[in-house]
Amino acid sequence: MREYLIGVDVGGTSVKLGKFDLEGNLLYKWSIKTDKTNQGELILKQIAKTIQENVSIQSIKGIGIGVPGPVKNNIVLNCVNLGWGSKDVEKELREVIIDEDIIIKVGNDATIATVGEMFKGVARGYQNVLMFTLGTGVGGGVIANGTLLEGKNGVSGELGHMVVDYKYNFPCNCGKKGCVETLASATGIVNLAKYKLARTKEFTPLRKFRYLSAKKVIDHAKMGDKFSKDVLDESMEYLARAMAFTSLTIDPDIIVIGGGVSNAGEMLIELIEKHYYKLVKPFITHQRIEIATLGNEAGIYGCAYLVK
Amino acid sequence: MREYLIGVDVGGTSVKLGKFDLEGNLLYKWSIKTDKTNQGELILKQIAKTIQENVSIQSIKGIGIGVPGPVKNNIVLNCVNLGWGSKDVEKELREVIIDEDIIIKVGNDATIATVGEMFKGVARGYQNVLMFTLGTGVGGGVIANGTLLEGKNGVSGELGHMVVDYKYNFPCNCGKKGCVETLASATGIVNLAKYKLARTKEFTPLRKFRYLSAKKVIDHAKMGDKFSKDVLDESMEYLARAMAFTSLTIDPDIIVIGGGVSNAGEMLIELIEKHYYKLVKPFITHQRIEIATLGNEAGIYGCAYLVK
Repeated sequence: MREYLIGVDVGGTSVKLGKFDLEGNLLYKWSIKTDKTNQGELILKQIAKTIQENVSIQSIKGIGIGVPGPVKNNIVLNCVNLGWGSKDVEKELREVIIDEDIIIKVGNDATIATVGEMFKGVARGYQNVLMFTLGTGVGGGVIANGTLLEGKNGVSGELGHMVVDYKYNFPCNCGKKGCVETLASATGIVNLAKYKLARTKEFTPLRKFRYLSAKKVIDHAKMGDKFSKDVLDESMEYLARAMAFTSLTIDPDIIVIGGGVSNAGEMLIELIEKHYYKLVKPFITHQRIEIATLGNEAGIYGCAYLVK
Repeated sequence: MREYLIGVDVGGTSVKLGKFDLEGNLLYKWSIKTDKTNQGELILKQIAKTIQENVSIQSIKGIGIGVPGPVKNNIVLNCVNLGWGSKDVEKELREVIIDEDIIIKVGNDATIATVGEMFKGVARGYQNVLMFTLGTGVGGGVIANGTLLEGKNGVSGELGHMVVDYKYNFPCNCGKKGCVETLASATGIVNLAKYKLARTKEFTPLRKFRYLSAKKVIDHAKMGDKFSKDVLDESMEYLARAMAFTSLTIDPDIIVIGGGVSNAGEMLIELIEKHYYKLVKPFITHQRIEIATLGNEAGIYGCAYLVK
């Protein structure tokens, strides 16, 4: 009897896996180290092997896979972090697990985390969901009318690469300057803090650190350091711009903030709201903006949802 | 036999109507002057009357109505231009036409024009469509996975009110400053031209006009006037920002430009493309950006589609 869903969240460092029942309850989770040798050609074999070791193949209804790159119609277009170019993950994985009846679906990891939050997290029950994942970069996911948007090229939800700044012009990994990712990710918070430390004489305990991190800025903001709070405030002003643009496009029921930076919690929401409403009035005057609740399990939940 | 669809595009000045066959071919169109007395309480009676005068009620399958304001689940939330507050148009219209079997659907006019272009215009056959209508203001419509997005508050597609400028700070009708509507609508083009005329001494034939209009700026740009072309170029740079933000959210198959300003044609597309690709690279490198083909009939086509 096919009674399990497998969620597989493939990252550049580790692959997280979860075994779910058909209702989407997480029964068991584990992870393996990603083997990126030879342009990541072993990754799918690794995944097939660890699934076979942990679950009887005949008991699996479906395997959902999230990857860090654009996906269109189940085909991965590229994943720089894994070494992959275009890849038919469904076909390649099926060749290894040799089971015609298992459903295999693939999606972009940031958008799948959004699905996870809709399935079992803070966005449960909503039809129109926006998610910003503030980690090393800024990822995004867009659900409209209950459906995850992929768009023409699978880049729907590349919310981190909206150019929202023409003042600092911090360079982005994508090749542009001023993307929201350069200001509101963990990296972006450090960019802003360093910039201001170098150009002001304002007192802040941050000056004593040889290496800055977003966590240090957030911790000091929480402890009442004005400099750190101002940095975070400005960072969230830029995030609020991207949020406003996206909101006027799809008018979401809820906006979810995930990723490491979201550990800042309620303080972050307050800073975002302060800037957000100025940019969407008078069209939107009440908006649920919430911290994600599934943490780094959002991906495997979303993957399970893909094949339920 | 119910063999006709009626499209009704309600504007502040006139109501445009169209009689369509069930395939969406326009058979006959006409218009009446909008009667806005007493907060527009006569408008729906006017519409019922003119439909009854022109088409046998028993032959109508459905009536689709577009209004200049936000609509959610067939309920108009407000229409400042018509004098309407919240209004159940379906219920009120049915009370006048007295036919239980006619389908009545209501939508926002800018989003419905987008549906019209998808149904019978330049966006025919596409599933993901963005439209910017550059008229007195800037309207928008968003179709994702073949479905028109309304969102939580019916404000999905308020693309004209993205704040894209922090330099000129032209005031917008919505109460904010720097909305794309203040820079890329017909009004916005005049805003920019006046601003630059007052602050530069650059030669331009525009200086001889007592009253400026977007059409004059466009006409002179086409005739080779550098000042006019620069104004239009900057105007389209701001439009390109809003387009880029929206594109990274839904990743459309095609972006359609409608409204009076779109009469500028190919020159406009060239200016938009010049700025747009800088803002969406490397994610989007090829994008269909096209002038709308249905002109001011897009609304009635879209209304017919609502009830087909």
